[in-house]
Amino acid sequence: MADGTRLDPYVQRYAARTEGMTASEIRALFAVASRPEVVSLAGGMPYTAALPWDAIADTVADMLRTHGATALQYGSGQGDQRLREQIGEIVDLVGVSTHPDDVIVTVGSQQALDLVTRVFCDPGDPVIVESPSYVGALGTFAAYECDVRHVAMDEEGLVPEAVAEEVQRLAREGRKPKFVYTIPSFHNPAGVTQSPQRRAALLAVAAEYDLLVLEDDPYALLGFDGVVPRAMRADDDERVVYLGSFSKIFAPGVRVGYAVAPHGLREKLVLAAEASILCPPAYSQWTVSAYLDTQPWQEQVKAFREVYRERRDALLDGLQSLMPPGTTWTVPAGGFYSWVTLPEGMDATAMLPRAVTARVAYVPGTGFYAGPARESGRRSMRLSYCFPTADRIAEGVRRLAGVVEAEQELLDTFGPAAVHHLPSLGDTPSPDLA
Amino acid sequence: MADGTRLDPYVQRYAARTEGMTASEIRALFAVASRPEVVSLAGGMPYTAALPWDAIADTVADMLRTHGATALQYGSGQGDQRLREQIGEIVDLVGVSTHPDDVIVTVGSQQALDLVTRVFCDPGDPVIVESPSYVGALGTFAAYECDVRHVAMDEEGLVPEAVAEEVQRLAREGRKPKFVYTIPSFHNPAGVTQSPQRRAALLAVAAEYDLLVLEDDPYALLGFDGVVPRAMRADDDERVVYLGSFSKIFAPGVRVGYAVAPHGLREKLVLAAEASILCPPAYSQWTVSAYLDTQPWQEQVKAFREVYRERRDALLDGLQSLMPPGTTWTVPAGGFYSWVTLPEGMDATAMLPRAVTARVAYVPGTGFYAGPARESGRRSMRLSYCFPTADRIAEGVRRLAGVVEAEQELLDTFGPAAVHHLPSLGDTPSPDLA
Repeated sequence: MADGTRLDPYVQRYAARTEGMTASEIRALFAVASRPEVVSLAGGMPYTAALPWDAIADTVADMLRTHGATALQYGSGQGDQRLREQIGEIVDLVGVSTHPDDVIVTVGSQQALDLVTRVFCDPGDPVIVESPSYVGALGTFAAYECDVRHVAMDEEGLVPEAVAEEVQRLAREGRKPKFVYTIPSFHNPAGVTQSPQRRAALLAVAAEYDLLVLEDDPYALLGFDGVVPRAMRADDDERVVYLGSFSKIFAPGVRVGYAVAPHGLREKLVLAAEASILCPPAYSQWTVSAYLDTQPWQEQVKAFREVYRERRDALLDGLQSLMPPGTTWTVPAGGFYSWVTLPEGMDATAMLPRAVTARVAYVPGTGFYAGPARESGRRSMRLSYCFPTADRIAEGVRRLAGVVEAEQELLDTFGPAAVHHLPSLGDTPSPDLA
Repeated sequence: MADGTRLDPYVQRYAARTEGMTASEIRALFAVASRPEVVSLAGGMPYTAALPWDAIADTVADMLRTHGATALQYGSGQGDQRLREQIGEIVDLVGVSTHPDDVIVTVGSQQALDLVTRVFCDPGDPVIVESPSYVGALGTFAAYECDVRHVAMDEEGLVPEAVAEEVQRLAREGRKPKFVYTIPSFHNPAGVTQSPQRRAALLAVAAEYDLLVLEDDPYALLGFDGVVPRAMRADDDERVVYLGSFSKIFAPGVRVGYAVAPHGLREKLVLAAEASILCPPAYSQWTVSAYLDTQPWQEQVKAFREVYRERRDALLDGLQSLMPPGTTWTVPAGGFYSWVTLPEGMDATAMLPRAVTARVAYVPGTGFYAGPARESGRRSMRLSYCFPTADRIAEGVRRLAGVVEAEQELLDTFGPAAVHHLPSLGDTPSPDLA
């Protein structure tokens, strides 16, 4: 009867990697949080309602009438040639010049993360990630039993010296990181952007220590001032694997992402992709191609940027006028997220159930760290402004400020024990949290 | 300069699992084989041109106009509730009654294979498979470094006693297979179907030795006499994981497959799916749901069956009248494939380049075995009749018979050395071969 054997007869039979897979307690909470009366500042869902659905319907219908039998057939494991050419034009916007042969289309950039990790990481292999880091990447690294090493970041993004120090620390143990994983622009969840100086310095560290950099860049075109940060891959095509996605510039439901990789690695990624899904959906790829061909997609990205900027402003205005002193937050210049840190002594993880009761949801900071490092996220939370309207965001911040205030009173009256309730949350949050 | 280091600077850094990943030599050959002048009896592409594209275009356009913002949003890691209900109705046709909660939607059933293997198999873990077995499954098992144990099958499918013997053999080494992988109906590549008696006997063996059975059933509704074989899952919902797919009853380009799994396992599969792709494409799922809702999909399956039956007949007629004595083949009662075995002394792998020169392609039998067992496929080949028209199939068999005859003459004149050229082919064939 130990280990819940009665409930799951296979529990003794799973692979070692399966042991770490447990549903986080946060899931149940988010089932509640998805009720319409709750303002969710938790999810990372793009505002797909802004897309021109009538025009997209016509485009897709034309595509199906003309090319249905091919567009819904099996396709290449690497992805359709036409779309890989179009991806070449898109990455050109971040300064990356690439040949379509070096592009691989994936099921969202999440699958690209999965494939790179699958190809490089044996159990226990170290990977260097930011503090905090993207929750979906941490889920992948956990699935491959990587040794996740968090290194410092600040308002200018990942700190190159901190990377160098961690590499040296590992070297003293006779080890070497398989790669450095970073989101340089409009970071999820930190809401910061790496400066050009920092990018150059990180590339120098990568060259000095012979490191592979995994540059995850889904928000690149969503900078509010319209300036597109130059990708690191633009300045180093040997040491940088570049990941992109159509989830934020078109729509996530097609699940189309991509990797631009050095040639030898690209071949391994294609083989790994074929073993896991045979080929990415031709249907999605033809749809994205048709959308890029027939619709003013760059104008649409501009429209998205304007919506998100308005919502970010609503969030920042609310935080500014309502949050108690001692609360700090990052000011995102693009993307979907701000990282909020509560006053000393508070616990954002423990507070979440009370926030949901007050009809506002967020993702507690602990979810963006692996292992013992989770504790460093206790006082923090990620707030997303991508999906709710500005009015709802303002209302959400009002509710949140009320909860924080009540929490502060508890803390002042009864001390820290009053506000710490929940254990650490599990390692694998639901996709709502991505 | 060893190991091609100069060509791939990462070659020393890959995970152990990456070592086995090499592109098969067969790929280059199939690039040639895909030219229009070649009759390909190699690929497993369904005949998507038979679908009602105008009606599908209208259906999808309506769906996008009404629900675009949701249908192209992120979705649940387990798959959309509505589609899982519809899958429940479909598996009812093979006798399986299931709750939507026990269905997980995957990126083709290939991803279901990947997830089950990921959840169960540590490197070196034994899995029992048929002789021959599905090439995509072998690719997955290789990717997870499984120890693949082939056991006998014949015209009635997998032989249960052979499974029991292999389990006993493993037990003597102190080991136990993680699962038995089988395609009971209209087998790929063998073209045979497991009899009801055999299915019952296999379930008895599974019960006796406490085995998990992975029942892969994409062709179930494509039996030419219209009878749908009852799934093993219908008679054992504790020991059988059932895999299905829309690739053959609708279209592969949506990449929608599914698994019906015992509850505890299903939860692990969802977590593994989220770590690798976040969620399956909502777009594909809404499209399949709309297709099932608005189109006479069962009539369409009947139309597919008639097309495939006509093509099978063309293949069998050709083989019957043209192949030299000593050649044998299976007579498929459904599905896409016949398994052909050449006369003693011949080598279907070595013959392939000459066949392609004669403008006909097939998949050599060696591709359907893992490791040293590959040699048992030397004399065999898989012929597919799903995609080319009956006329083209007849022409393809004519060309193939000519090649076999010339090969036979070489063999008679110069002995076996004259017909053995190629080394074993790599383990990971391209998706064309699936």
